[in-house]
Amino acid sequence: MTYCVAVKVKAGLVFLTDSRTNAGVDDISTTRKMSVFTKSNGRSLVLLCAGNLAITQSVKTILKTKKNKLFWSAKSLYEIAEIIGECIREVNRRDGEALKKDGLEFSCSFILGGQIPDEDMRLFKIYSAGNFIEADEESLYFQIGESKYGKPILDRVLDSNMTTEAAAKCLLLSMDSTIRSNVSVGMPLELLEYKTSSKKTINYKLVKDGDEEYERIKNVWNAYLKDGFKKLANFSWDKTLNFLKE
Amino acid sequence: MTYCVAVKVKAGLVFLTDSRTNAGVDDISTTRKMSVFTKSNGRSLVLLCAGNLAITQSVKTILKTKKNKLFWSAKSLYEIAEIIGECIREVNRRDGEALKKDGLEFSCSFILGGQIPDEDMRLFKIYSAGNFIEADEESLYFQIGESKYGKPILDRVLDSNMTTEAAAKCLLLSMDSTIRSNVSVGMPLELLEYKTSSKKTINYKLVKDGDEEYERIKNVWNAYLKDGFKKLANFSWDKTLNFLKE
Repeated sequence: MTYCVAVKVKAGLVFLTDSRTNAGVDDISTTRKMSVFTKSNGRSLVLLCAGNLAITQSVKTILKTKKNKLFWSAKSLYEIAEIIGECIREVNRRDGEALKKDGLEFSCSFILGGQIPDEDMRLFKIYSAGNFIEADEESLYFQIGESKYGKPILDRVLDSNMTTEAAAKCLLLSMDSTIRSNVSVGMPLELLEYKTSSKKTINYKLVKDGDEEYERIKNVWNAYLKDGFKKLANFSWDKTLNFLKE
Repeated sequence: MTYCVAVKVKAGLVFLTDSRTNAGVDDISTTRKMSVFTKSNGRSLVLLCAGNLAITQSVKTILKTKKNKLFWSAKSLYEIAEIIGECIREVNRRDGEALKKDGLEFSCSFILGGQIPDEDMRLFKIYSAGNFIEADEESLYFQIGESKYGKPILDRVLDSNMTTEAAAKCLLLSMDSTIRSNVSVGMPLELLEYKTSSKKTINYKLVKDGDEEYERIKNVWNAYLKDGFKKLANFSWDKTLNFLKE
């Protein structure tokens, strides 16, 4: 399994992925799910992937070979999402039928974000059919893979006016909830922020097991939640106990 | 969809369910998913159900008719779990094939908890195959239905030494996270606690939309989380930005 999440706030984009891949619990390994594409001309793109690793690797390979020229010359991020969609469909034409025969779904999904010259930064989610949607102010973030455990904290605190640093903190808490609940999502993590201040900057960190900053955020938050839970007054019961008998 | 959760702490059992049922988002209604069975001889049982409503209703009907005598004379909660398993298999024999033809899974699950004389209280989860597992001190709680959104808070704070009132508060927070994230889980809620103090007591409450206690718990918790998130220091970035280029 995989958990990838990305958010677009006014100040920039933040991306976070885990790195666990597995074909059953007895076949677990580590793979990078974040690809970063940059050129000195100011074109900066980040691609996160989830789903069948054979599919997502092939999609990225086609993107970097056959579609490479198109990819680098695209005039909008929308166009790049279209190109990735075409790569997905090409892999489906090649592998889809055989996977189906083996009872396997053609499953992959991608998050694409970044900026190309003459356009604002944008964030897309691309489905296994090759179709895609874009984030906006009402729908700030996208998740792919094991998304449910980590969703509540995103819904509670993400806000398009927050800094990229605060957004990164939120994504890390979301990842922590996911890792606690699903053993198939695991360390290390890859965290990247893209800031749209006058001088564009990209900060990247490979967050390894035992990383001091991540440990601090997890532990302080866990202690805070436990403490708040104790302080929160208990549910008080009705005095009238009218339960339904059967 | 449905979300049901129950926990066994040393002080007793707590059960919580939502009450939304739907056959597509254009066909939503309210149904009770908690059944309470009590007799003055001290036999108190609670059954929660999730899955296909036609299946779970049939299971409960068979339990209350054909299997009624067996149900009330069973000598252990384990035996009652077996009886419910048999009811599930009977419905499967009748409906399973036809459901499959319509492309529908035979999907149902139950949580059974309570106490019968000469036995400690017990808590079981029963699967759609009719097999079942029991809670113990390491595995305190069971969820059925839409379980993922509400799991992190259970994993963080549930503890077998807590009071049933504290456990109820935790289940309500878990429900709140679920309702926020999945529109097919909805009010009203049914909350029940079974206390194993010298005098056994059952407290039941139908928690309706706008219920003062539930609103207080939700709102105080939400404000607390947002406040804590602000106070938690941001992730600090490495100064060295060594991101992988492709």
